[in-house]
Amino acid sequence: MPVGIVVQKYGGTSVADPERIRAVAERIVAAKEAGNDVVVVVSAMGATTDELVDLAHQVCARPAPREMDMLLTAGERISIALLCMALIDRGQEAVSLTGSQAGIITDTTHGKARIVDVRPFRIHEEVVAGRVVVVAGFQGVSTDKDITTLGRGGSDTSAVAVAAAVGAEVCEIYTDVDGVYTADPRLVPDARKLAEVTYEEMLELAGSGARVLQVRSVEFARNHGVTVHVRSSFNSGPGTRVVEEDKAMENAIISGLAHDTSEAKITVHGVPDRPGIAARIFQELADNAVNVDMIVQNTSSDGRTDVSFTLPTDDLVTGKAVIEAVCAEIGAAGFDVEDDIAKISLVGAGMKTNPGVAAAMFTVLADNGVNIEMISTSTIRISCVIKAADLEIALRAVHARFGLDGSDAEVVFG
Amino acid sequence: MPVGIVVQKYGGTSVADPERIRAVAERIVAAKEAGNDVVVVVSAMGATTDELVDLAHQVCARPAPREMDMLLTAGERISIALLCMALIDRGQEAVSLTGSQAGIITDTTHGKARIVDVRPFRIHEEVVAGRVVVVAGFQGVSTDKDITTLGRGGSDTSAVAVAAAVGAEVCEIYTDVDGVYTADPRLVPDARKLAEVTYEEMLELAGSGARVLQVRSVEFARNHGVTVHVRSSFNSGPGTRVVEEDKAMENAIISGLAHDTSEAKITVHGVPDRPGIAARIFQELADNAVNVDMIVQNTSSDGRTDVSFTLPTDDLVTGKAVIEAVCAEIGAAGFDVEDDIAKISLVGAGMKTNPGVAAAMFTVLADNGVNIEMISTSTIRISCVIKAADLEIALRAVHARFGLDGSDAEVVFG
Repeated sequence: MPVGIVVQKYGGTSVADPERIRAVAERIVAAKEAGNDVVVVVSAMGATTDELVDLAHQVCARPAPREMDMLLTAGERISIALLCMALIDRGQEAVSLTGSQAGIITDTTHGKARIVDVRPFRIHEEVVAGRVVVVAGFQGVSTDKDITTLGRGGSDTSAVAVAAAVGAEVCEIYTDVDGVYTADPRLVPDARKLAEVTYEEMLELAGSGARVLQVRSVEFARNHGVTVHVRSSFNSGPGTRVVEEDKAMENAIISGLAHDTSEAKITVHGVPDRPGIAARIFQELADNAVNVDMIVQNTSSDGRTDVSFTLPTDDLVTGKAVIEAVCAEIGAAGFDVEDDIAKISLVGAGMKTNPGVAAAMFTVLADNGVNIEMISTSTIRISCVIKAADLEIALRAVHARFGLDGSDAEVVFG
Repeated sequence: MPVGIVVQKYGGTSVADPERIRAVAERIVAAKEAGNDVVVVVSAMGATTDELVDLAHQVCARPAPREMDMLLTAGERISIALLCMALIDRGQEAVSLTGSQAGIITDTTHGKARIVDVRPFRIHEEVVAGRVVVVAGFQGVSTDKDITTLGRGGSDTSAVAVAAAVGAEVCEIYTDVDGVYTADPRLVPDARKLAEVTYEEMLELAGSGARVLQVRSVEFARNHGVTVHVRSSFNSGPGTRVVEEDKAMENAIISGLAHDTSEAKITVHGVPDRPGIAARIFQELADNAVNVDMIVQNTSSDGRTDVSFTLPTDDLVTGKAVIEAVCAEIGAAGFDVEDDIAKISLVGAGMKTNPGVAAAMFTVLADNGVNIEMISTSTIRISCVIKAADLEIALRAVHARFGLDGSDAEVVFG
């Protein structure tokens, strides 16, 4: 077998202190000694990014986005240098590259830039010279030659983009969990680690609150056909592979259950039921950068209707101000806010061909006394908004009903 | 008067915390509002560089120099970003540039690179657009496209180099002292701030232990004719101007007294008095990167001689090991080490035409019971190595003898 390039990405927890950095260096050396060329992407150490954000807010209330990017990119600069020192000390030639040196070109949107190109000339040069290349995640250089960041979790995207550009065999994402689980093991004791998920399932899980991979990195991997392998940086377990549907070994109907407690719900009452009114509400929210997730509009009877939507709790202050103004303009009756909600999402590629899944999910929730406040679905996902207090019972009941603990591989619906 | 460019450099103490960063921003805005274009060079905040060095040593004992530079340059990245945030928050458009973005090109010597060129295209662009440009000091990009640092105190050199490249009217070095003094005011209560010193005097003072400016920055200023102005970042006092000799307003015979307690002395006994032996000793030391300062060789009587030299205390461990080996090879009798020494240096451009200065200095030291262990001179400097315990009495006596307190402008020698 010819030598292949393996891209390994280590998150902030994996490089949180000098001891862990040395442990990561050992793992990299092992991969190199196994005959692979290794390109590594790292995040900033532990809480560094949070500390830098805090420092910026001590200087002023609204730091300029371009300067915030200049500031935050110091974080990965520190971790790439320290990791290379550990590798070189261990006898492995290594070289650190900033996002800019690694050829990661982005658009000019500071704070959440998108990668537009990766020009891996220098990476290739260094790999050919036998060195391990350690690339700063989360950062790039814009088409205007300014330093940019990709937004929180952006290091996953950096790793996948580098893997695609260098034609890596696999992009290994090392993290502080063992892989992708059928549900959060802290809430569902029977949760089982998955050996594989498809890109689509992973996208839905990540978009529904599973924190193991960042949504954009999964999109990027799917679009460029990069095999992603989620593994623990603290043990040598097999982890979870994220692959194309037709390459998946097992084809479970349901893959997993994600949940999200970071959202709140706003219901606008007595909205005049005329064309353009809903557009008005959500355009105002979008203009104020409020990220709306689910939207439900009840059937109208008397020319007026209720519109409910969920939004991140972080956006709640802005969201309430926007809705207060809009209510007056459109002549709505008023609005109320619920912030003690949770969303549970059942995800599985097999759902497409099994129409009974939704009904089975609603039934098991009802049987356990859990009231459903909102429902939204995609072809491979069903999400329900419930009371936060019902979260644990709901997760456990749905997890058991669909045999996610592995006890019952063949689940019959309908 | 046409608008001129002023370069201002702020050291680590001046930007040590968010409050001081805001104060520096105020000072910059004042300079800009006075009608100048302002280019700022900053060091890393307070103890940042030391903390990063410490972190590196927690990872391994001998960090690779290239990676050390990658690590340390995170420090100024943080300070330039925070200072720009403060300026923008204050309503002043500003843009931070790394050494690389500012066009500071160096050789490839990691840890103590030399600036080979400054290509200020981007600085000019931003200045023309009305922005304050904040450049990261201490760092550059090498001709091999790697990140380099200029060594401790290198931010002064960055500032002078940028000032020369943009044709600045003046390079203001803001620091935590009021200017250049006739002696260290903590040891000599009568010490007086100088309004002006010449490049040559400043070079000798800096080279003899005065910490206010870094030697290389003064050399650079002299070679490129940059007027340097040392000022306090905590008050608006007039500071000290460093100028060419023929531009100096006052021409005191003696300008100041510097001291250095960071050196130790090694004496090699019974060295065979043959050609090439001294060369052998000092070549070995140079090959091991030991920085030798003063060298004294006693007259030989019996075919053997004693050789003494001073070296930084930091190099003492290496220096002793080298000398131990060399002693055996050349058949010397042995060596001893003294680390409780101090060096005092009297500096003044007028010394050239006043041959009595040296004798007057030795006399006042003898009169005060201070024994001189070694002597070295240049055309405008006389340095004496004495016991560290005698430092304060020696400084005060010499300071008074040469009228440096201003009480006696006309001092007669000989």
